Amino acid sequence: MTTDSNTAVATVDVLLGPDQLNDLITDQFPDYAACRVTGVDGRTLTMAVDGDRLRTRPGGTVSGPEQAGLCDLAAFLLINARLGPTLMALTSSLQISFLNRPRPGALRVHARTAKFGRRLCVVLAELLDADDVLVASATLTYAIPPARPETA
Amino acid sequence: MTTDSNTAVATVDVLLGPDQLNDLITDQFPDYAACRVTGVDGRTLTMAVDGDRLRTRPGGTVSGPEQAGLCDLAAFLLINARLGPTLMALTSSLQISFLNRPRPGALRVHARTAKFGRRLCVVLAELLDADDVLVASATLTYAIPPARPETA
Amino acid sequence: MTTDSNTAVATVDVLLGPDQLNDLITDQFPDYAACRVTGVDGRTLTMAVDGDRLRTRPGGTVSGPEQAGLCDLAAFLLINARLGPTLMALTSSLQISFLNRPRPGALRVHARTAKFGRRLCVVLAELLDADDVLVASATLTYAIPPARPETA
Amino acid sequence: MTTDSNTAVATVDVLLGPDQLNDLITDQFPDYAACRVTGVDGRTLTMAVDGDRLRTRPGGTVSGPEQAGLCDLAAFLLINARLGPTLMALTSSLQISFLNRPRPGALRVHARTAKFGRRLCVVLAELLDADDVLVASATLTYAIPPARPETA
Repeated sequence: MTTDSNTAVATVDVLLGPDQLNDLITDQFPDYAACRVTGVDGRTLTMAVDGDRLRTRPGGTVSGPEQAGLCDLAAFLLINARLGPTLMALTSSLQISFLNRPRPGALRVHARTAKFGRRLCVVLAELLDADDVLVASATLTYAIPPARPETA
Repeated sequence: MTTDSNTAVATVDVLLGPDQLNDLITDQFPDYAACRVTGVDGRTLTMAVDGDRLRTRPGGTVSGPEQAGLCDLAAFLLINARLGPTLMALTSSLQISFLNRPRPGALRVHARTAKFGRRLCVVLAELLDADDVLVASATLTYAIPPARPETA
Repeated sequence: MTTDSNTAVATVDVLLGPDQLNDLITDQFPDYAACRVTGVDGRTLTMAVDGDRLRTRPGGTVSGPEQAGLCDLAAFLLINARLGPTLMALTSSLQISFLNRPRPGALRVHARTAKFGRRLCVVLAELLDADDVLVASATLTYAIPPARPETA
Repeated sequence: MTTDSNTAVATVDVLLGPDQLNDLITDQFPDYAACRVTGVDGRTLTMAVDGDRLRTRPGGTVSGPEQAGLCDLAAFLLINARLGPTLMALTSSLQISFLNRPRPGALRVHARTAKFGRRLCVVLAELLDADDVLVASATLTYAIPPARPETA
């Protein structure tokens, strides 16, 4: 796979770069306007999150399901980066351990592929706060649709 | 544990009944106004969900993190029913398998305790759609705070 | 699916009954000679386990991975009961919560299908001790091979 | 914490080094004679495994529960390295994704702490084969006993 300067592909290994992935967030995930992809290659993706715009739970911290949603979004975008737009890649399972309560402010998600199969992808994601404290660690499995719609 | 007619405890085994749990939703979880506890005893809780008021993902189905959030809420409420208001019961891990796409409309969550320890609770939750199809199955672990605030 | 009197199929819903599944244990899983299928239908399977013949961990209780192995075996056998011999059904993920330390003696595993798809099966399994105490609760996902070897 | 030359502590951050951890395997985990700790510090542990001495499943590959057992052992040893001998550190949950079938031969487990709390530890473990292929990825939660025996 070669870089294509016309479509601003970030690296040789992905079909969608940060700009296109951020457009995907805007178009398809309006609830996640707090999120912005800052880097992607064929195996990893980094996403910055404005923590002040997330759902909180009693006590004021970012809710667990919201943390799960951030990891899920990053994993979904990493798969889309690699395959091209694949909106019907569906999460088949999600495991997340909540490790430390995040400090208020910016968060980051680091996602990386553990397995990229034809039918199943497994992505490991870590959520960190502004002090680089590990907030949550997640394992996400995606079912890849048999017929991949390669265009939006 | 005996019933206390003054506080409308639903059964001998819980400290909070459906009405009080629904007040807890209203007060503490405004994002989950679609949810309503319909039954609870010391080991199980049932919650009805208006599926049309939930976050969707591309394709129009209820998003995975939203499904996780419903299971998490039901588990949290079951623990609160049993212990009395314990807002700082925190999810320490969540595993969810997404099994079938729900039909549009009403959903139900059935939660039951698998372990109710002094420090850790494990709750199993199942999400079903209006046709009784199993939509998701989840295992949630909660850390119980050492000092339990027994009153709101 | 119809019963086949020649092959002693247990019910209309399974292709292998307890006797054949127990032969499968003997032939393919010699490490699990402590296990014996006692009942199976299209959705559930029950397996009895001689707890004195299992791997223990320091402290003398049945080790966690051994508990995981019992749940995994029961799930595998349930899938084989339904599909006919499918040795290459592979576990793709396993989540297990260890809830209570089992009393010495007999154990039981109850497995049930949460999803039986063409490519993926999800099985929920519970491990109980002789006092009916819930020892462990597991969620297992299996990848079903595209070409199913229907004969041993 | 300072090094203690008398007890051959491997680094400043651990109370037990590889030699002592390998003695622990010999004494307490005779089923895991195939395993040998090759490195440890306060946050990570590496363990080499003779893959030819492990339980296999039909098809000849290392069984899933055996892979889970390797990850569980490495996590347990990492906790013991840091706390000193703590045989009653108990696995409270285990999640493992099986990613690729390992090639025959040597395996390695890399374990690292994601959270090291007073009551709960979360360890992430990866199992790799001789070709550095990621075979499995696991998340393990341990309950730490309230009274820690800090000496053997």
